[in-house]
Amino acid sequence: MLEKFFNPKSVAVVGAARDPKKVGHSILKNLRDNGYKGRLYPVNPKAKSILGLKTYPSVSSIKEGVDLAVITVPRNFVIDVMKDCGKKGVAAAIVITAGFKENGQEGLILEQQLLEVAAGYGIRVLGPNCLGMINAHTGLNASFAPSMPHKGNIAFFSQSGALCTAILDWSLSRGIGFSKFVSLGNKSDISELDMMEYLSGDPATKVILGYIEGVSSGREFIKKAWATVHKTPLIITKAGGTQSGARAASSHTGSLAGSERAFEAVFKQTGILRADTIEELFSFALAFSRNPLPTGPNLAVITNAGGPGIIAADACERSQARMAELQAATITRLRKSLPPTAGFFNPIDVIGDARADRYAAALEAALEDPGVDGALVLLTPQATTEPEATAKAIIDIRGRTEKPVLVSYLGGDMIKKGADLLNKKQVAIYGYPEEGVKGFEALVRYNKSKMKAGPNIVQFKDVNTSKARAVIDKARSEGKKELGEKEAREIIAAYGFRVPKNVLAATSSEAVKAARGIGYPVVMKIASPHILHKTDVGGVKVGMKNDKEVESAFLEITSNAKRLMPNAMVWGCMVQEMVTGGREVILGMSHDPSFGPLLMFGMGGIYVEALKDVSFRVAPIGKEEAHEMIEEIKTYPILKGLRGEKSSDIDAIEDSLLRLSQLVTDLPEVLEMDINPLLVLQEGQGSVAIDARFTII
Amino acid sequence: MLEKFFNPKSVAVVGAARDPKKVGHSILKNLRDNGYKGRLYPVNPKAKSILGLKTYPSVSSIKEGVDLAVITVPRNFVIDVMKDCGKKGVAAAIVITAGFKENGQEGLILEQQLLEVAAGYGIRVLGPNCLGMINAHTGLNASFAPSMPHKGNIAFFSQSGALCTAILDWSLSRGIGFSKFVSLGNKSDISELDMMEYLSGDPATKVILGYIEGVSSGREFIKKAWATVHKTPLIITKAGGTQSGARAASSHTGSLAGSERAFEAVFKQTGILRADTIEELFSFALAFSRNPLPTGPNLAVITNAGGPGIIAADACERSQARMAELQAATITRLRKSLPPTAGFFNPIDVIGDARADRYAAALEAALEDPGVDGALVLLTPQATTEPEATAKAIIDIRGRTEKPVLVSYLGGDMIKKGADLLNKKQVAIYGYPEEGVKGFEALVRYNKSKMKAGPNIVQFKDVNTSKARAVIDKARSEGKKELGEKEAREIIAAYGFRVPKNVLAATSSEAVKAARGIGYPVVMKIASPHILHKTDVGGVKVGMKNDKEVESAFLEITSNAKRLMPNAMVWGCMVQEMVTGGREVILGMSHDPSFGPLLMFGMGGIYVEALKDVSFRVAPIGKEEAHEMIEEIKTYPILKGLRGEKSSDIDAIEDSLLRLSQLVTDLPEVLEMDINPLLVLQEGQGSVAIDARFTII
Repeated sequence: MLEKFFNPKSVAVVGAARDPKKVGHSILKNLRDNGYKGRLYPVNPKAKSILGLKTYPSVSSIKEGVDLAVITVPRNFVIDVMKDCGKKGVAAAIVITAGFKENGQEGLILEQQLLEVAAGYGIRVLGPNCLGMINAHTGLNASFAPSMPHKGNIAFFSQSGALCTAILDWSLSRGIGFSKFVSLGNKSDISELDMMEYLSGDPATKVILGYIEGVSSGREFIKKAWATVHKTPLIITKAGGTQSGARAASSHTGSLAGSERAFEAVFKQTGILRADTIEELFSFALAFSRNPLPTGPNLAVITNAGGPGIIAADACERSQARMAELQAATITRLRKSLPPTAGFFNPIDVIGDARADRYAAALEAALEDPGVDGALVLLTPQATTEPEATAKAIIDIRGRTEKPVLVSYLGGDMIKKGADLLNKKQVAIYGYPEEGVKGFEALVRYNKSKMKAGPNIVQFKDVNTSKARAVIDKARSEGKKELGEKEAREIIAAYGFRVPKNVLAATSSEAVKAARGIGYPVVMKIASPHILHKTDVGGVKVGMKNDKEVESAFLEITSNAKRLMPNAMVWGCMVQEMVTGGREVILGMSHDPSFGPLLMFGMGGIYVEALKDVSFRVAPIGKEEAHEMIEEIKTYPILKGLRGEKSSDIDAIEDSLLRLSQLVTDLPEVLEMDINPLLVLQEGQGSVAIDARFTII
Repeated sequence: MLEKFFNPKSVAVVGAARDPKKVGHSILKNLRDNGYKGRLYPVNPKAKSILGLKTYPSVSSIKEGVDLAVITVPRNFVIDVMKDCGKKGVAAAIVITAGFKENGQEGLILEQQLLEVAAGYGIRVLGPNCLGMINAHTGLNASFAPSMPHKGNIAFFSQSGALCTAILDWSLSRGIGFSKFVSLGNKSDISELDMMEYLSGDPATKVILGYIEGVSSGREFIKKAWATVHKTPLIITKAGGTQSGARAASSHTGSLAGSERAFEAVFKQTGILRADTIEELFSFALAFSRNPLPTGPNLAVITNAGGPGIIAADACERSQARMAELQAATITRLRKSLPPTAGFFNPIDVIGDARADRYAAALEAALEDPGVDGALVLLTPQATTEPEATAKAIIDIRGRTEKPVLVSYLGGDMIKKGADLLNKKQVAIYGYPEEGVKGFEALVRYNKSKMKAGPNIVQFKDVNTSKARAVIDKARSEGKKELGEKEAREIIAAYGFRVPKNVLAATSSEAVKAARGIGYPVVMKIASPHILHKTDVGGVKVGMKNDKEVESAFLEITSNAKRLMPNAMVWGCMVQEMVTGGREVILGMSHDPSFGPLLMFGMGGIYVEALKDVSFRVAPIGKEEAHEMIEEIKTYPILKGLRGEKSSDIDAIEDSLLRLSQLVTDLPEVLEMDINPLLVLQEGQGSVAIDARFTII
């Protein structure tokens, strides 16, 4: 869909200017001077030619077709220009001009109008308020960036234009190359969604990086992220998560910063690699850009110094990568080529006086070990160290292996030439051992998640959606926002949750009859539409063991209510099955402004309150996600049974989460809900939803 | 004590050589060529002069006094040279030569002999197996490092020589300067302890950095660290913590890597700032080296781009620093000097087209706000940005403030000149906003801990050490390693722990008498030296409420025991006070190989097992440390009382921890112990030690 946007045969620059200080000049110059082979049309009614190119008074006055228009005219002329583009049949437009949504209400309205016009003509729009777009491979620099990036296989999109400029400048000094480079600006139309979709199918792109402050459409984001990660690594830095950060975000780009926990959940669900810092974003990117994927997590470290070797081993241990265990044959081989004082285990210490040959022997031996999935070479500059020759040896060996090889040269001028050579030859090289380990870990993590192609959603047939909806509709017709206990129970029961047996008794003899039917012991609760906090009025009694106890409990509860809340209408008592044993968990859902229904799972009671030990996923989820939610909480060992205790019914929790996922997906009227507690019985015995509450819209 | 080591009036290089490939040549050259003003004596019996300096056949043949000898002769000659140095009255020696402890048993013996000789003459020894030492301010380069560091106020010591070379090389390319630069090698004598002691009193040193893989003497380390942190910031990277790391450490330097948790505890107790990576080590160092300490945690961020501002605010929120809230007067002032679309709150966004003047106005206003304790200036290269002029403005303002000012210029060539200028003028400048925030956070954290001058140890008078020791002595005389329940109870009771009342009853009527004396209800347990797992033989009954229940429990328990363990000697039953209510916590001690008694605290039962939610400190601890241990666990809110529950008696836990600290300090025979559970009652009601176990040596 964005083919003509990224690869236009012709580009018009509307607002092209002679004055080199003007953005319209910079863009035209960038388009002219960086090897773009398509046709170029400056549009400016007041000039005959700019930068040696024939100028046109309007887009529609250009005779040939125009694929892409870059618009730099002042805000109040942008809509007219867009109309002109529409008439001409332009496919895509980049609106550089600022002063729209980011400037308040008036700008927002203008942006909406602009978008309507563009949509009417089927024009895709980047911006407004952006730096532009660069396709490094075709030399198309449709931006006012002060420089042109190197060609490479990293695609980058960013919600912050300033970050684009900074990263571009930085990448040039580091020799890092890009495929596509896109400043998203206000994301009025083209957004991260389009980037993921297009770039994951782009043969020039091996890894996609993004900087976002929020997402335009959470549901679409999840879908697209799944599809993308399946094909191409996707690394994202998400800013504006914390409170101060979020404040800055909303005052800056007007984008709503979705809640941190929802983003965290989405990143986990979809397999997006989250980079916590800009530095990490590029540490990861370098690893993907310059390496094949490893087939396992086992890393061999080759070093000429003990300290950095230990540092790398420590970092590895803290990560999802593992220090490889070398096979006996490899160790024998190393013993032949290294001095006796060397370290033959992993890290392989080639010792301070190692020259290039020793590095080569060790690296080759390590990479040929079937238990090694990748290598990290560390070099410190010592008396006889050969940074350049070692670099050449690494480059040579790397050409003959299908395993990732990462490098960290520690130092400054002494190692510079070697490091520059490695960088030039597209070896992933880092300043610190820890960074190299993190880079390898990113490859390992991606490997695990790329198999995901979206959740494997279970559709339960034994649910009664229309019954649940009827309960909600009735409550809405009565103007209720909070559902009562009975209604809540009806909804979850309709979705296959087991709820305690429950009978309304208007008299004490009815209560006895009900209790007998349910089976002793029972719980009794006041039944009144006006009494919400039942325990406060002495309205609950548990463990009633026989007819006599039920009878007197009925009288006590109802008279308590009459005495303490004389105006409440009292229907009688609810007589309820008493479920004992099991462990209390909590299941819930809240509504995230970006992603919609956010499911929560945790241990109940003090655990959830004191430890906030809960996990989140955005619904709908599949079996795998449900299981991850359960395993993710720190108190999971309690569920599995400590000290020889029997395990709780984990399958039943999984089933409950999947039913809940279906419930909140089927019933978007549910704004928030929780089942607290869900009593989980021993393995094979299921679970019972003791209490639930719903808030609807 | 190390005065003559760091500032010798004369240096002899033993093993000085003409061959430029030899270490003895490099060192002499380094000493001659870097401005050292003292006398220099090459020692080599085979040469008349080396590098234009008169050569001596031995140290003792030098007529004038010799303060420092640098020894580079082969391993087998080192001891003879040391004897010669001793006769001459040399104060300190640097043994560069390798092949000692790090090479196995033979080397270890040689190293011990060497040390004995040196100690006999009172010679302080650096090394063996090290790179040497540099005093950058006097131009003394007593090392074979390939270059001389810049002068500066950062002291660096390292257990890895290769890391020294790498960091030195790196520091030159970054313009970072040092006061002292020391490669510790095998730490046979001079170690991190001497470094802390000397460098914290060194006027040339503003911040001390260390890289260690283990410590020589844990107790001394703690003492010296306290004293150091009180005077000078101490930042340490500790490697070899994780399992793989530790393996690499022991195979490399022969140093025992102390357990990670003990190190973590010691760093917390003493206020050492731990740097997790080498990069962090220098991020922190730069902040201290180039800034005054802030008086509070509130940071103002000034930026010309929204994205990086959000990134910094996020990082700040995750740290112990805080985003400052600007005063109304400051905001008014900012409104006057910034355009209307600027961001007037923190982060202060001076907007993409800001030139130096706008940065200056914003920075000045922020620093003059009494609610701002420091500032971070962020700059991205945009069309009208002035990286150099802005740098000048920052340098100027910084000269007039007593608050820290940190800077992050994002980019490459476009910002290089400005960044270089800031660096040259000793402004702490970072590549990424997050690094700048971390640097400021380090200042904030140090500020909190520098007040510590060691623990405020409470000595309880009401303890009976001789009684506790008598119990241990008796057990030892019987060859016991594990103490029984009774002995354990006696020891902790002697240290003022309240234990349940407890009476041994040989018959059922004695049991009834005992129960009456204690008061109902009671717990009853089988009393037998041969039955360890009492519950397994039906040997425990709780909640006996009256005479009759006690009587039948006695008969049941003893007959159970006779039936199931017919050969066990049975003394009867223990009748025990039954303590109810309260919350279970666990107190314990284990023996760390580096630091000795390591105290542990956590919530009891499933919490400690499932969550490993425990805290550690090395004994002895003071009131503050005890309180920190309690507050540190995640389940602390449970102790404080959730949902309106009453708080547990926190003071009683604190008291218990302090008593335990005294106990394990008084009784080094205790190898491991725990009190599990300690039942903590409601506020003001104390605690009861229900059960305890001891392992002794």
